[in-house]
Amino acid sequence: MSAPNRMGYEPADVWLAVDWGTSNLRLWVMTSDKAIVASLGSDQGMGRLAPQEFEPALLALAEPYLQAGRCHPVVICGMAGARQGWVEAPYQQVPCAPVGQGLQEVVCQDPRLCVSILPGLSQEAPYDVMRGEETQIAGFLSCEPDFGGLVCMPGSHTKWVTLKRGLVQHFTTALTGELFSLLASQSILRHSMSDGWHEPSFLAGLEEGFDQPEKLTTSLFAIRAQSLLAASEPAQGGQSARLSGLLIGQELAALSKVWQQHNLVVIGSQDLAATYARALEHLGQPVRQLQGDVMALAGLCQAYERLQEQRTAGAQR
Amino acid sequence: MSAPNRMGYEPADVWLAVDWGTSNLRLWVMTSDKAIVASLGSDQGMGRLAPQEFEPALLALAEPYLQAGRCHPVVICGMAGARQGWVEAPYQQVPCAPVGQGLQEVVCQDPRLCVSILPGLSQEAPYDVMRGEETQIAGFLSCEPDFGGLVCMPGSHTKWVTLKRGLVQHFTTALTGELFSLLASQSILRHSMSDGWHEPSFLAGLEEGFDQPEKLTTSLFAIRAQSLLAASEPAQGGQSARLSGLLIGQELAALSKVWQQHNLVVIGSQDLAATYARALEHLGQPVRQLQGDVMALAGLCQAYERLQEQRTAGAQR
Repeated sequence: MSAPNRMGYEPADVWLAVDWGTSNLRLWVMTSDKAIVASLGSDQGMGRLAPQEFEPALLALAEPYLQAGRCHPVVICGMAGARQGWVEAPYQQVPCAPVGQGLQEVVCQDPRLCVSILPGLSQEAPYDVMRGEETQIAGFLSCEPDFGGLVCMPGSHTKWVTLKRGLVQHFTTALTGELFSLLASQSILRHSMSDGWHEPSFLAGLEEGFDQPEKLTTSLFAIRAQSLLAASEPAQGGQSARLSGLLIGQELAALSKVWQQHNLVVIGSQDLAATYARALEHLGQPVRQLQGDVMALAGLCQAYERLQEQRTAGAQR
Repeated sequence: MSAPNRMGYEPADVWLAVDWGTSNLRLWVMTSDKAIVASLGSDQGMGRLAPQEFEPALLALAEPYLQAGRCHPVVICGMAGARQGWVEAPYQQVPCAPVGQGLQEVVCQDPRLCVSILPGLSQEAPYDVMRGEETQIAGFLSCEPDFGGLVCMPGSHTKWVTLKRGLVQHFTTALTGELFSLLASQSILRHSMSDGWHEPSFLAGLEEGFDQPEKLTTSLFAIRAQSLLAASEPAQGGQSARLSGLLIGQELAALSKVWQQHNLVVIGSQDLAATYARALEHLGQPVRQLQGDVMALAGLCQAYERLQEQRTAGAQR
């Protein structure tokens, strides 16, 4: 396959920025001056790939942009670096900068690929880990190097990350998103779920979860009982929104000592980040909201620059 | 098929006591003076049966014990009476006696079956429902008619039931058991589970869940992170026991105002009831433990007697 003949970039200079999650593969074809040539994606997440299948999955997207005789840098963050991923990039322990140390080089069959995988971060007390979010944090810090405060990163495993002087100081993970998915699709509550979103039910669930977080397991069954007994049909999307509110309310109660005294930014996908932002604002906490994929790309660009600096320095030695 | 020619019972007098749950069907062949002729079971629970499949599932077990020309009483409790079961037996609203009112008769194709389904109980404030546990309560009250206090009934959906003067006054359901199953088998935590049981991990999780119930969603992810990071291998069954402890601890925290001031009995299957009993005793609450299936059968016997009394009274009118 020949490289597409596009205006405005030099195929020889192309590098690849990759956010490789458990479920999805996101890839940006970039120029050396950080312009986006192409934004691509597939469902070839880490969860469905054996180690030898990562390189073909990458080539399936990137092939048209690679030039023979060139070694294109490929900078990857996320679960591709997990123990069960492509090649393990061992965790960096906090407190530390979110990105810069411990990149894991991967030898590829295709000589056009020069792959480096970013490590995740770990914490010993209490035990915690992240993979992928550290790159979004690096992207955020590249825009706001002086930020000190808290970053909330909603997802299947929501991260709450304390930043100070450019370092990740501490973080906490909540299983809220995964719990919501399991309960909504696999538990007895699935019979009570419906499509759509009913904001008043979300806010009622949020208040209940926040005010009585210890009652989660009993509040959950009440969702089912209400569907069986209530005289009037619940609003479209009401019980799903209520479940979401209950769970996010409990999470916010668990972390209230943290977020109530911090400068707070929410980074994530549009919908989920907006849901957390509305929840926090409803509880009296103003927040700023930033796009997760934009921050991931910014972080990958920063890692790419560091890598280039190191290579230049290495070549000059 | 002919009735088995057993000593000591009159085939014409046989009646059937049935506990029909979501996953399992439990059936006792009984004599009119409450002796057990046979104790049978199958995996033909309500969850896998369409309405027209209940009668064949019953016959598959009971056929050898039925006599032509007789209408054998069949007394059923549990999910067979749910809306999605065999025939709906609408809930009785508390406060009320656990069993006695609202039995739903079912017309069968086989004239040897005279089926009555016991209704479950419902509560309006807050919304709650049970189906099957009310029969165990009736069995318990038939042994201890003067009991006043709290009955804990562990299961997928654990029930906490307040009894006074022979009536169910109030009850609360916790989704703890189902939550444990989902998390242990389907979430990211499944990678950290192992067979076996490690009591110190259970008690540590119990204390954490009880002391910090609001932190459930963050405590859950720590189980995964610990497996990834801890220097030493966790004990066999340690993380599963810890998860169980965390969830039961949260449940006991949610209900501490209830159980700390009550005469408390735990009714359930041997293992799970023993787990709850150990948890409550660890938190300083002495409990008595009773077998769920024994209580279910006692409750079905009581319902059978009421039914016979009503029929006799009806015949005399």
